[in-house]
Amino acid sequence: MSGATIAFLTDFGASDTYVGQMKGVIRSIAPEAVILDLTHGIPPQSILLGAVQLQQSVTYFPPGTIFLAVVDPGVGTDRRSLVARSQGRYFVGPDNGLLSLALQKDAVIHDMVNRKLALPTISSTFHGRDVFAPAAAHLANNLPLEEFGPRLTDIIHLEWPQPVQVSEGQWQVPIIASDHFGNLITCLRPEDMRKMSLREASFQVAGHEIGTISPTFGAVGWGRWLAYVGSSDLLEIAVNGGSAAAESGLGTGDHILLRDLGISGRGR
Amino acid sequence: MSGATIAFLTDFGASDTYVGQMKGVIRSIAPEAVILDLTHGIPPQSILLGAVQLQQSVTYFPPGTIFLAVVDPGVGTDRRSLVARSQGRYFVGPDNGLLSLALQKDAVIHDMVNRKLALPTISSTFHGRDVFAPAAAHLANNLPLEEFGPRLTDIIHLEWPQPVQVSEGQWQVPIIASDHFGNLITCLRPEDMRKMSLREASFQVAGHEIGTISPTFGAVGWGRWLAYVGSSDLLEIAVNGGSAAAESGLGTGDHILLRDLGISGRGR
Amino acid sequence: MSGATIAFLTDFGASDTYVGQMKGVIRSIAPEAVILDLTHGIPPQSILLGAVQLQQSVTYFPPGTIFLAVVDPGVGTDRRSLVARSQGRYFVGPDNGLLSLALQKDAVIHDMVNRKLALPTISSTFHGRDVFAPAAAHLANNLPLEEFGPRLTDIIHLEWPQPVQVSEGQWQVPIIASDHFGNLITCLRPEDMRKMSLREASFQVAGHEIGTISPTFGAVGWGRWLAYVGSSDLLEIAVNGGSAAAESGLGTGDHILLRDLGISGRGR
Repeated sequence: MSGATIAFLTDFGASDTYVGQMKGVIRSIAPEAVILDLTHGIPPQSILLGAVQLQQSVTYFPPGTIFLAVVDPGVGTDRRSLVARSQGRYFVGPDNGLLSLALQKDAVIHDMVNRKLALPTISSTFHGRDVFAPAAAHLANNLPLEEFGPRLTDIIHLEWPQPVQVSEGQWQVPIIASDHFGNLITCLRPEDMRKMSLREASFQVAGHEIGTISPTFGAVGWGRWLAYVGSSDLLEIAVNGGSAAAESGLGTGDHILLRDLGISGRGR
Repeated sequence: MSGATIAFLTDFGASDTYVGQMKGVIRSIAPEAVILDLTHGIPPQSILLGAVQLQQSVTYFPPGTIFLAVVDPGVGTDRRSLVARSQGRYFVGPDNGLLSLALQKDAVIHDMVNRKLALPTISSTFHGRDVFAPAAAHLANNLPLEEFGPRLTDIIHLEWPQPVQVSEGQWQVPIIASDHFGNLITCLRPEDMRKMSLREASFQVAGHEIGTISPTFGAVGWGRWLAYVGSSDLLEIAVNGGSAAAESGLGTGDHILLRDLGISGRGR
Repeated sequence: MSGATIAFLTDFGASDTYVGQMKGVIRSIAPEAVILDLTHGIPPQSILLGAVQLQQSVTYFPPGTIFLAVVDPGVGTDRRSLVARSQGRYFVGPDNGLLSLALQKDAVIHDMVNRKLALPTISSTFHGRDVFAPAAAHLANNLPLEEFGPRLTDIIHLEWPQPVQVSEGQWQVPIIASDHFGNLITCLRPEDMRKMSLREASFQVAGHEIGTISPTFGAVGWGRWLAYVGSSDLLEIAVNGGSAAAESGLGTGDHILLRDLGISGRGR
């Protein structure tokens, strides 16, 4: 039987040896653990995006998986380090909100104050290698949460981003990510739209008006813009066979316009 | 003894969590399987290039390897999903030609219609995670091909790209890829050149005339252009110590000019 | 018990199938070996940077780890191929200096002349797949170094880059890398600075004067420049919350200016 699963999510990219050194540390402490990369492509220091991507991926991994998440602009300051259990999985990372969307009401969270579980020398800029990787490895070796430090209840929480109403029947909907294909991923969930009681939803992106939610890319012609519910159960905007991000110039932090034509009418 | 090998080839890139979620799904269903990345760097939706790269890599992996290949612009349409066996290896992917160069005459191919083998919820845009990853995991658990659906014989086939004769003794030779080093990889195999019965081959690229096929990079001076048979047994064009792609502006879909000087002479 | 650890360091990038084919070869020969990526992001053909990154990562991996390092502009020429043992780990790579910083005084080095241990066909451009990957796999199978070929003592050595004194109290300090976050990593180690007997060190980068070495990023304000000893125990220059590389236009091969204000004064 193979060992515990450790899934990495970081903003470290693929060009340096940071992630590789973390894997070496884990392999030194927990040689049976199996390391999987969830992603290292979180934009540098984008805590919210990391939190969203982590939350959306949890249930695709087996119970017992240890998520090692490092997006850590506050490294070296007095921000706390966390180990936690929720949804039958484990989580390791900084207390800056990164874990907060993945941790549900059942979460048991501990403050990682036991320095004996870190590497002998702790750098001030790379706790991923010196603190978090050893912690994940000790969890893989079945060390109980209590050994890391006292229980916590007051961690930093992020809120899921929300559409902002700008006038009657008009909302700005934040784009939370643009993916490798140039698809624009918004914060909008199908249940959010149902709560908004929209009569005739229309999306405006870079001068394009998209009046329906398509079931698939193939439902619109090549080169056409479409809105659809993507694989993360979020509303996305794409160009069939093209890149919506490149064609619109939009990305994370920008927004699209949602209009309820049943209220605001079709004029500008 | 470690478990089955699953080798990934996709156009998903490294910036998102798509590949990571697929790995989580596999680990959930087939915890003993060993996952290796062949590449996630196929240019978005480049089925031909994916097919070529897959075909060229098969024999470097051990018998029994399961190749999970996803370049899938038709996801969500009625294109079929395939599981197959050929050359002692297994293959999973969409029926759009992606697998067709790797599948030899011995291939046994099945139509993956058994929805019980997919995730309970199948998104319309990410069959990699919801259909193909579970299928690869079930193969790793030794599920027979017959369990996936009926046998097929009429899958979509791609043809290996061919040089196009443009005048007597002159051919346009397609570039099928430019690699990380900027080397231009053409479709031309040594046996193709032998069949063309060339008397005195010369390659013209971006104003450079290359009159010989070099055995190694070191055979020409630093900064010099060269033609050579690369590690995929294909003719490649490079600049020793530089990037032929950057210097020429050429890439996938462009072509170089092959001239038989014994026929066309040295003039323009 | 899981098998031997093989850690990869190459300049092959992530876009091609080169690394994937190497993994397939290893899995074919040594199915129990566990492959970890240290990095594939060494800039193309940057032997020195690869040597530095390898040397700095060795001790984070467990004893017995086999480092497979390929940055190999001389592939296909008569440069030798090496297998070695040092610091309780194993090393495989070309004899061009790439391994030389990691190999300590205890190193036992052999010339890999036994062609029976390579793949049956050896391409002239990809010894990573055809020669080095099989060698690493055979080491994972506990083949003794002596089986690869005769012992060597005269390999090519690189020197650690050094600051260059340009006038009294002024040194140019080479930048050896800029990382994913845009941090500029210099060659300067704390012990080098102690040996220089600096009275009042100040760093000049792109018009910014940095007068102190900060313990953490958080010690300076958002958007401020800082100097600090990074996770590789080297002096680094960064912008808190920004990219020093992007803001300065500096990178590998450039330098920063170190001034001893106790000698050279504060004027220009």
